[in-house]
Amino acid sequence: MKALVYHGPGNKAWEEVPDPVIASATDAIVKIDATTICGTDLHILKGDVPAVTEGRILGHEGVGTVTQIGAAVEGLAVGDRVIISCISACGHCAYCRKQVYSHCLAPEGQSGIGWILGHLINGTQAEYVRIPYAENSLYKVPATVTDAEAIVLSDILPTGHEIGVLAGKVKAGDVVAVIGAGPVGLATIATAGLYGPSRLIALDLDANRIEQARQFGATDGVLSSDADWRDQVMAMTDGLGVDVAIEAVGIPATFAAALDLVRPGGVVANVGVHGKPVELPLDRLWIANIAITMGLVNTNTTDTLLKLVEQHKLDASLFVTHDFALTEIEQAYDVFGRAAETKALKVLIRA
Amino acid sequence: MKALVYHGPGNKAWEEVPDPVIASATDAIVKIDATTICGTDLHILKGDVPAVTEGRILGHEGVGTVTQIGAAVEGLAVGDRVIISCISACGHCAYCRKQVYSHCLAPEGQSGIGWILGHLINGTQAEYVRIPYAENSLYKVPATVTDAEAIVLSDILPTGHEIGVLAGKVKAGDVVAVIGAGPVGLATIATAGLYGPSRLIALDLDANRIEQARQFGATDGVLSSDADWRDQVMAMTDGLGVDVAIEAVGIPATFAAALDLVRPGGVVANVGVHGKPVELPLDRLWIANIAITMGLVNTNTTDTLLKLVEQHKLDASLFVTHDFALTEIEQAYDVFGRAAETKALKVLIRA
Amino acid sequence: MKALVYHGPGNKAWEEVPDPVIASATDAIVKIDATTICGTDLHILKGDVPAVTEGRILGHEGVGTVTQIGAAVEGLAVGDRVIISCISACGHCAYCRKQVYSHCLAPEGQSGIGWILGHLINGTQAEYVRIPYAENSLYKVPATVTDAEAIVLSDILPTGHEIGVLAGKVKAGDVVAVIGAGPVGLATIATAGLYGPSRLIALDLDANRIEQARQFGATDGVLSSDADWRDQVMAMTDGLGVDVAIEAVGIPATFAAALDLVRPGGVVANVGVHGKPVELPLDRLWIANIAITMGLVNTNTTDTLLKLVEQHKLDASLFVTHDFALTEIEQAYDVFGRAAETKALKVLIRA
Amino acid sequence: MKALVYHGPGNKAWEEVPDPVIASATDAIVKIDATTICGTDLHILKGDVPAVTEGRILGHEGVGTVTQIGAAVEGLAVGDRVIISCISACGHCAYCRKQVYSHCLAPEGQSGIGWILGHLINGTQAEYVRIPYAENSLYKVPATVTDAEAIVLSDILPTGHEIGVLAGKVKAGDVVAVIGAGPVGLATIATAGLYGPSRLIALDLDANRIEQARQFGATDGVLSSDADWRDQVMAMTDGLGVDVAIEAVGIPATFAAALDLVRPGGVVANVGVHGKPVELPLDRLWIANIAITMGLVNTNTTDTLLKLVEQHKLDASLFVTHDFALTEIEQAYDVFGRAAETKALKVLIRA
Repeated sequence: MKALVYHGPGNKAWEEVPDPVIASATDAIVKIDATTICGTDLHILKGDVPAVTEGRILGHEGVGTVTQIGAAVEGLAVGDRVIISCISACGHCAYCRKQVYSHCLAPEGQSGIGWILGHLINGTQAEYVRIPYAENSLYKVPATVTDAEAIVLSDILPTGHEIGVLAGKVKAGDVVAVIGAGPVGLATIATAGLYGPSRLIALDLDANRIEQARQFGATDGVLSSDADWRDQVMAMTDGLGVDVAIEAVGIPATFAAALDLVRPGGVVANVGVHGKPVELPLDRLWIANIAITMGLVNTNTTDTLLKLVEQHKLDASLFVTHDFALTEIEQAYDVFGRAAETKALKVLIRA
Repeated sequence: MKALVYHGPGNKAWEEVPDPVIASATDAIVKIDATTICGTDLHILKGDVPAVTEGRILGHEGVGTVTQIGAAVEGLAVGDRVIISCISACGHCAYCRKQVYSHCLAPEGQSGIGWILGHLINGTQAEYVRIPYAENSLYKVPATVTDAEAIVLSDILPTGHEIGVLAGKVKAGDVVAVIGAGPVGLATIATAGLYGPSRLIALDLDANRIEQARQFGATDGVLSSDADWRDQVMAMTDGLGVDVAIEAVGIPATFAAALDLVRPGGVVANVGVHGKPVELPLDRLWIANIAITMGLVNTNTTDTLLKLVEQHKLDASLFVTHDFALTEIEQAYDVFGRAAETKALKVLIRA
Repeated sequence: MKALVYHGPGNKAWEEVPDPVIASATDAIVKIDATTICGTDLHILKGDVPAVTEGRILGHEGVGTVTQIGAAVEGLAVGDRVIISCISACGHCAYCRKQVYSHCLAPEGQSGIGWILGHLINGTQAEYVRIPYAENSLYKVPATVTDAEAIVLSDILPTGHEIGVLAGKVKAGDVVAVIGAGPVGLATIATAGLYGPSRLIALDLDANRIEQARQFGATDGVLSSDADWRDQVMAMTDGLGVDVAIEAVGIPATFAAALDLVRPGGVVANVGVHGKPVELPLDRLWIANIAITMGLVNTNTTDTLLKLVEQHKLDASLFVTHDFALTEIEQAYDVFGRAAETKALKVLIRA
Repeated sequence: MKALVYHGPGNKAWEEVPDPVIASATDAIVKIDATTICGTDLHILKGDVPAVTEGRILGHEGVGTVTQIGAAVEGLAVGDRVIISCISACGHCAYCRKQVYSHCLAPEGQSGIGWILGHLINGTQAEYVRIPYAENSLYKVPATVTDAEAIVLSDILPTGHEIGVLAGKVKAGDVVAVIGAGPVGLATIATAGLYGPSRLIALDLDANRIEQARQFGATDGVLSSDADWRDQVMAMTDGLGVDVAIEAVGIPATFAAALDLVRPGGVVANVGVHGKPVELPLDRLWIANIAITMGLVNTNTTDTLLKLVEQHKLDASLFVTHDFALTEIEQAYDVFGRAAETKALKVLIRA
């Protein structure tokens, strides 16, 4: 088959590789119908994720069709159309039993991390992929849900939902600020709407993105480049700050902004992937009764979100801005890599 | 002043009575701008609530303007426009400290019940009313919220929200059935929408009410008179039943229906006011991992709901179907008492 | 091998049967080191559980040693000493993903019920047993934990903990009443102590059992046969009733007693297995803000309880009152069946 | 009356001052029976808390007898023996209604902070003290509870319980590390025992304090000065870290230690009062699924803890190590200020 293979920092190639085969009784082989690219893939290509070694097939998102199942796989059959979760969960380790699939301790790789696709094992930017622990890592897709809707359930919708909205404990009546209106920030905004916030404020440096955020459910927008950005947000609260501040960028300045916006008793939920430590002003905040949360998606809410997409209670169709053939994947990387310019959110790459 | 006074079963009169006066430093006097009638008022008039004695002014819902405050009242001023909560909460007893205002143990009346207006003390169907524990029992209304929106925050919106939706633990993705689409059932449906259900099914004997329920957010409707009503609901789930079944009628048949609809692991939330015991088939249900909840509204979410009404995230304007002057209150009772025929939900009675 | 086989109401025999074999890649075969008898086994023998058919090997509790594993079993090895959970959980159905293992929808038997051992498939009162979904249904036992401690983790400790204490939401400072001080009532009392109740009141008809309950952590005891039993309990509260009333008998009178003891805002947790419907006086209780819970154990806290037993934070050694050899199992049934007279709690039956 | 008055950094005096008087209908005057000194008082004396101005009477902990009540005070009477909470809560602002008394927005002082005694208004190191919002700020003490037990309910027991144990979400079976075994660390250890941890590890630089921690319920102790302190703790877990790490010192090194000990999915609860910002290595931790909490005590669990002390389920008698007369208060400060040397935990200062 053909796949996109990592060949060290800056190098990737769409090339012929061996077909994947069932390696364990709990595996499935999935023919990819559609895949996409994540910001993390760009980081990998820069060499920022050393665990990804030369020869690895990239990609951890995908929608496909089951072509083979291992002897122990129940509840899935050849021909099933499935969402491939970015997290592979053994289902029986101490973490999986608590639904903390992000830190699955599975024997395969002994990794202590549920994200293995396109990371520790071959991924989804390929014609076929082997999915370990298939029962807990694949989700059957109803026929009425399109590939463009399903693909965002692999990673970004659950990420925004779990690490932003649920960790942030967004509840009815809350005023919520989401800092950063990129794909994951928009996924956070879209899923926050399921919890009845009274106001949902998008902050970004880019006025276009703020406009876009309104389509996903933001009630208000604030340009982070405005000198009085904080005052603008405070004016949308009772003056004490937002109930929940969600960081969806991953740099010290936006994390600091989240701390500056949250009210006493509130929550700062960090969704961004950070490359540097940040400062935590505990001399000011020890008294503030806040919680700060962070983490990798568990995908334990994928089935819930899928039901909501199926019932048109959550619009997952808004994320895909560009469409490519699998053979055009390198072009897709180019467009996605220049997102500020191309206005790409998610690029759908179809087999 | 004039007020509607209870004179024993079947008798009430709009008559001259003494003006209320501040009796405690924590009291306020409120001039009524609008009041309304509750199903409970009809029960009282039938003589079903013996604690209501001859001479009592009826009514526990209202919007008004503060005209006097006791010496210890903070945070309220003469001239404030306020919602009168149906629950009076002392704010410092063991129950109030847990926000279970419904069972306030306040010295006034030593009642063990937070509902005292139009019950143990004079109520809101009058030109003026004395409100004990004013700080915890009145809510300032923003100017943009109308009387017709505010009045449903006295009782039915918090009741549907707290005793139906919150007690029922409605959560994102749930399939929810609400049995009974009267005012409180519709309040349940409207507020359930804040929690991201995937389907919200209204059941009623009246096709008109089911149609009405859709305006409040029901996604589906089932006529309880259909022989296959249960099968219709089951077909809207995965075949195992609804996650949450909310009873909003108050008779044995509808309670039994809720038990018949709920899936293993689900919740039956009883909102209806019952006049008879019901049968609980524990021989069948001991193994079902369900919870059954019931109770009087705490109104501890009134401020949250008010914020959502103010931000147009919850449409409170749909409940009022009829409009009367305070002097026409007996006519209002007549229209409300024939709701099936008049299609009355809430009747607004303005001073 | 030899096993105790059900031959219709009133009939059982310790007889030769075929050895179990691996039927699925996720199975394990366990050599029984110790088993025990549950009140449910007595019900089965009376013919009360028609799903148990002629020829079924009885028993759903056991401690043993793994002798064979299926091809897909990870995390377990031949020679491992294990607790056999009374619930078999596939680990991947919609219920298992929410840790509601009690209602596992596994293909094997398509039962919708996690209790299959000694019920829908052969059980543990045998020399060997086949355990489906071994990864999620067996728990490795530390060497320092004895068989007598481990055996109560198969069923009664998790049952008391999950269906009594957790469902009842016992929390620090609570006054808790446990009605019925049999094995499961005592398991409830023992595990309630993990949640910081201020008083833990045991009610029973038998003064000996109440005395026994104190060893398990009850702070107070009340004889249910005393005319003023309710007043005695009320005197141990602030006069309003207990925070949590746990029913651990399974008859209408004790369920009614639980409703009579609970305070407004409290919880009635039903643990007893009922054979008849009960009356629920909703005419009195609709206003009481209580929750009533019920269900079959999920065993999702077995690992937690095992840790606490291992660290001597929970004394599991007090339950076994009698010791038999596996060949004496019919005698063990006799002693256990006359528990009132023999004072048997759990009888340990060793291979 | 006599009181200990702050006269700027380094200066305090036990001197004659005017008696306090009722200033609001919700006030009470309390005659001090016993007071004590907090680490925060030492900070104030160093000039670290500029909000404390010249002339302020110090102290925010105390047990006393009500001598006068304002016109609106219900539920308290002259002669009642009471615990004075370190937090004064109006009971009706947006924060008090959520039980976040720590951030009470009360008109008195408009402070946004519930700690006002010995801070923004006169405190408890005096013969008498005025207590605003008396109903929500005083707790009646049962006769069987001694002053030495009651005094720790003013501040340190609720602080350890709420900001350490509850914020840290300590749950049955958890392995918990408490870093710092001073008075608040010991209060954390004592109250953690109410939640069923399997191991409770005390870390400190002082071997004596670790020994002392065992009396309060620590199961294990680790000397922070040991080079392999982290390995020692890890060996007490499954190798992945503790479920909850509680910081009870207030310096960057101990906060960093907490981050180093917590397992993926765990909680770091900061109880220490910090004087400097700390570094948060989000580059390493963004993926760790942890929560970090911090805050000022709400004292919303004071009544619960009092019940447990009364029932001897929580031993509050272990904290007081020294006993002084009120006239010896300056000597008490000296002994408490040299705690490392004098081994003082709490010093009881009796009127």
